[in-house]
Amino acid sequence: MLLRMSSLFVRTLREDPAEAEVASHRLLVRAGYVRRAAPGIYTWLPLGLRVLRNVERVVREEMDAIGGQEVLFPALLPREPYEATGRWTEYGDGIFRLKDRKQGDYLLAPTHEEVFTLLVKDLYSSYKDLPLMAYQVQTKYRDEARPRAGLLRGREFVMKDAYSFDVDDAGLERSYARQREAYLRVFARLGLEVVAVKAMSGAMGGSMSEEFLHPTPVGEDTFVRSPGGYAANVEAVTTPVPDAVPLEGLPAAHVEDTPGTPTIETLVAHLQAEHPREDRPWTGADTLKNVLVVVVHPDGRREPLAVGLPGDREVDTTRLEAALAPATVAPFEAADFAAHPEVVKGYLGPGVLGPNAPLGEDGERAPSTIRYLLDPRVVDGTRWVTGADADGHHVLDLVAGRDFTADGVVEAAEVRAGDPAPDGSGPLELARGMEMGHIFALGRRYAEALGLTVLDENGKQVVVTMGSYGIGVSRALAAIAEAGADDKGLVWPAAVAPAQVHVVAAGKGEDVVAYAEQLSSDLVAAGLDVLLDDRPKTSPGVKFKDAELLGMPYVVRVGRRLADGVVELEDRRTGEVAEVPVGGSTTGAVLAAVRGEGRETHEAAAVVGDGS
Amino acid sequence: MLLRMSSLFVRTLREDPAEAEVASHRLLVRAGYVRRAAPGIYTWLPLGLRVLRNVERVVREEMDAIGGQEVLFPALLPREPYEATGRWTEYGDGIFRLKDRKQGDYLLAPTHEEVFTLLVKDLYSSYKDLPLMAYQVQTKYRDEARPRAGLLRGREFVMKDAYSFDVDDAGLERSYARQREAYLRVFARLGLEVVAVKAMSGAMGGSMSEEFLHPTPVGEDTFVRSPGGYAANVEAVTTPVPDAVPLEGLPAAHVEDTPGTPTIETLVAHLQAEHPREDRPWTGADTLKNVLVVVVHPDGRREPLAVGLPGDREVDTTRLEAALAPATVAPFEAADFAAHPEVVKGYLGPGVLGPNAPLGEDGERAPSTIRYLLDPRVVDGTRWVTGADADGHHVLDLVAGRDFTADGVVEAAEVRAGDPAPDGSGPLELARGMEMGHIFALGRRYAEALGLTVLDENGKQVVVTMGSYGIGVSRALAAIAEAGADDKGLVWPAAVAPAQVHVVAAGKGEDVVAYAEQLSSDLVAAGLDVLLDDRPKTSPGVKFKDAELLGMPYVVRVGRRLADGVVELEDRRTGEVAEVPVGGSTTGAVLAAVRGEGRETHEAAAVVGDGS
Repeated sequence: MLLRMSSLFVRTLREDPAEAEVASHRLLVRAGYVRRAAPGIYTWLPLGLRVLRNVERVVREEMDAIGGQEVLFPALLPREPYEATGRWTEYGDGIFRLKDRKQGDYLLAPTHEEVFTLLVKDLYSSYKDLPLMAYQVQTKYRDEARPRAGLLRGREFVMKDAYSFDVDDAGLERSYARQREAYLRVFARLGLEVVAVKAMSGAMGGSMSEEFLHPTPVGEDTFVRSPGGYAANVEAVTTPVPDAVPLEGLPAAHVEDTPGTPTIETLVAHLQAEHPREDRPWTGADTLKNVLVVVVHPDGRREPLAVGLPGDREVDTTRLEAALAPATVAPFEAADFAAHPEVVKGYLGPGVLGPNAPLGEDGERAPSTIRYLLDPRVVDGTRWVTGADADGHHVLDLVAGRDFTADGVVEAAEVRAGDPAPDGSGPLELARGMEMGHIFALGRRYAEALGLTVLDENGKQVVVTMGSYGIGVSRALAAIAEAGADDKGLVWPAAVAPAQVHVVAAGKGEDVVAYAEQLSSDLVAAGLDVLLDDRPKTSPGVKFKDAELLGMPYVVRVGRRLADGVVELEDRRTGEVAEVPVGGSTTGAVLAAVRGEGRETHEAAAVVGDGS
Repeated sequence: MLLRMSSLFVRTLREDPAEAEVASHRLLVRAGYVRRAAPGIYTWLPLGLRVLRNVERVVREEMDAIGGQEVLFPALLPREPYEATGRWTEYGDGIFRLKDRKQGDYLLAPTHEEVFTLLVKDLYSSYKDLPLMAYQVQTKYRDEARPRAGLLRGREFVMKDAYSFDVDDAGLERSYARQREAYLRVFARLGLEVVAVKAMSGAMGGSMSEEFLHPTPVGEDTFVRSPGGYAANVEAVTTPVPDAVPLEGLPAAHVEDTPGTPTIETLVAHLQAEHPREDRPWTGADTLKNVLVVVVHPDGRREPLAVGLPGDREVDTTRLEAALAPATVAPFEAADFAAHPEVVKGYLGPGVLGPNAPLGEDGERAPSTIRYLLDPRVVDGTRWVTGADADGHHVLDLVAGRDFTADGVVEAAEVRAGDPAPDGSGPLELARGMEMGHIFALGRRYAEALGLTVLDENGKQVVVTMGSYGIGVSRALAAIAEAGADDKGLVWPAAVAPAQVHVVAAGKGEDVVAYAEQLSSDLVAAGLDVLLDDRPKTSPGVKFKDAELLGMPYVVRVGRRLADGVVELEDRRTGEVAEVPVGGSTTGAVLAAVRGEGRETHEAAAVVGDGS
């Protein structure tokens, strides 16, 4: 296809848009690929739409290659199926809800597990119908609290979501593996580096899940990896649990006067001064910090919670929320303190928490109303310095499993660089990433909630097991833009570029215009998409600037050197320029560059040049 | 592409779905092309999605051919632009509105004039940037009061909407004509008969508009056409206005006792008995009927209105609403009668309406509060029998323009077969049609409301003039299904069929299966899409029934006759079967049939058969 700059619906801007936070957003707007219609809601201009369609095509081809069958669900869906699985409530403020003229409840679907399940239930009834892999490329909606970074976190966006239906766990494993491989092929073809990391299933439910994170400083997710190949997002990192210590022979707990030590830092300093250890200095890791939060359940119920963890670590709210999903976490505020007079700020200990019944003023024990969860490091037999629930007092040698217990264990402590990988594969390093895809072995949650069963080989009804597999298509486009961009503008890989070649008629001479036209139609005839800058009154300088901003992978400059029988072929990414002699082989040289991509090709082009 | 029935995500049903009203809906559901997700909201299964994509492709190709540039707007849009043009209110209950988490007002766009206008305003500033023709194929939403007939009137549906932007009226005329021609080509390629009829612009605004109606008994629109080529939907039909009659010498009006004549029928009978005419019998057309309604304005304001028209015609609410748009019409009810004691039921005359001030009880005149509009036939000098605003009394020889006037003229009377075409091209006939497309020369309404101007050649700001052009893509698919269907199932034209050929392996013999597979891959290699029924345990009878229901245009039966070296090639539409010898030329024969379409091709296939 031939696109002409003279009539193309585009306008390049020299100024960055005010709201742009990241390079991809800034450049996609400046280069006229997208325009903002509302916060997190974008309009695709012709060049942007071409890239979007190219990304979609790659995704479709890989879905088709693993037997995926394309369908298309509505975006506007009734409440009932989402009510049946509990997600109508679980999504909280995160989805768009509306009513129709008959006051029926609808939502703009953020994902389609429920209705895919119902569709299969509607059509299929036997194990012979399975396995089934179906997918759609469809517009999705989320009412993000903070839509940001242009297409990277939008409120209306394009997603590919696929769903697998199998009769047993082995089938689900195969489907999951097939999708996983397809995802790696998709991202490879898109030129997007990704790391597959272990993830939490969160609101989706299910047993196993991986995220495909694109490492980038603008990513919103933190993930970890080890030299031995372990990778996970921080929510999914599990803490290696130390062996329990025998309780026999441990010193008795003793309360000490520790005036003015409401923080870990002041406490450690006090211990060091007043109770020095013989073997080594005190550290925050010797103390047990008890952090209060309020758990907000999807139905709005608020529940006080204390998390006990080594004092040298903070609670990571993202990890805590992932552990408590679908509940969320809110701060423990003045009103909450007022409702819990047993809490002494700065000196909170296990004594008033969870199963460790507090002593009332009359000396009687009464059950605590604050749930208590412990970090996995707090195993039985470990000794701690922690609050004595009295101002200016701590208790030393308080032993877990002897002096206190909890309601359970929670992975809520921050993960730090250098922490050991749970699989023993070495120390973790932390990196920023952006979620490009997410795959879930859902299991039977949705099928059970919605009654999707089939008859198995023995004529018995069995619940179908499902997987769900998503790729953020418009987000992938933005990530490609972000990864490729340089200080001059966008740089597209040929696989998704709006056109592979940008032919610039750099001059007003009839021969320049005629040759640019001729070369463009030859390249189109050879199967390429070409953007021809044929604007008659625009200077070569402006055209070159626009070509840099627009980012086609190859730029052919037809200009002054045409008189010498030469055009220039620039690799937009490397900036390398090859001279290509004009003639029958010019098209071939450009084709070789586009198809080969990279340095070798330029050399080939040069060789073609030399040889003609 | 090769589709296999053995794994295709489809289930054919023998029973009609309960909610199906029309053949297309019934068959598309039974054949597994679509499933209902909610009233007026459908899911596309693989076969249905393939047809939808084919229809979209035809539309895109014709839009591209007239220089249309594809873009893609969001469906979720903020209130403000629609507020600026008044349509946020005008749409009434007809659109889906919602709020985001910050209580911002949004809608699911039913059409995109506003945001297209704003986008062009955002990017363009000079006459040199115009003309511009841009389009999108996009999902639209309308909260229909009565979603019906499956995809024919949905609440979520696929539409192609295009918009033209020109600097002057001549440009708009050219753009409009170009779209009009493209529309005729689109419908011709889709095999859909359409009639381009004059239409009202309605809520869209603008000066000129045509609908492309597909004549069908299941259509919701009534349109008229004349032998001389006039065509219009009933809303747009104008009444030829008779010449005014000189007032001189006309008899004076006189009130007569007409007891028990509250209807036109009883009145005509009374007149015939008590006041016989010499020249001809009295008819309803001699009487002036005054019909009361309540006009409901978009802001909710209710206004009483009387329509005066010849007594032999009813008010057509559709025409009246089109004339009053964006207001709608509600019945004049008991409470309204109570508020207007001057109205004497059954004997209402112009005397208490509009500018014909009523006589109060004290003999004084007071202004009427009921607006009064007249049918165009009620020209000055025409004489009428009409209500005398007193029970059991009518006035005779009441002369328009002498004895009464009105606030204006309105096209609200029903149009009847035999009425003269407004352009003198003969008597009108009435037909049912379904709106497939609608094109509007919008003019400057949107550009003015949203401030879209460009600098013209003389450096002066001029308001841009626009056109808007829509095709119901999913509706067109349903209309194609409706038009093609027979008592056995769907019949698709090759241009949009999910596959052009359905190869049925009718038997379990290895040779049958092997040949069906071989032929299918040969056909795919030759560029066709093929649906292969390779289900190993399904009987030939069930496969043939399914092939009829699914409706691929050509069915190749590989079965018992294979032993004789012959397969059968059926034209699904005509039911004709040609025998094609097995061998190198089989693929060619099928290709010839598909590409030629129709009877000649079958003969060609037979010839190929004879000759090999």
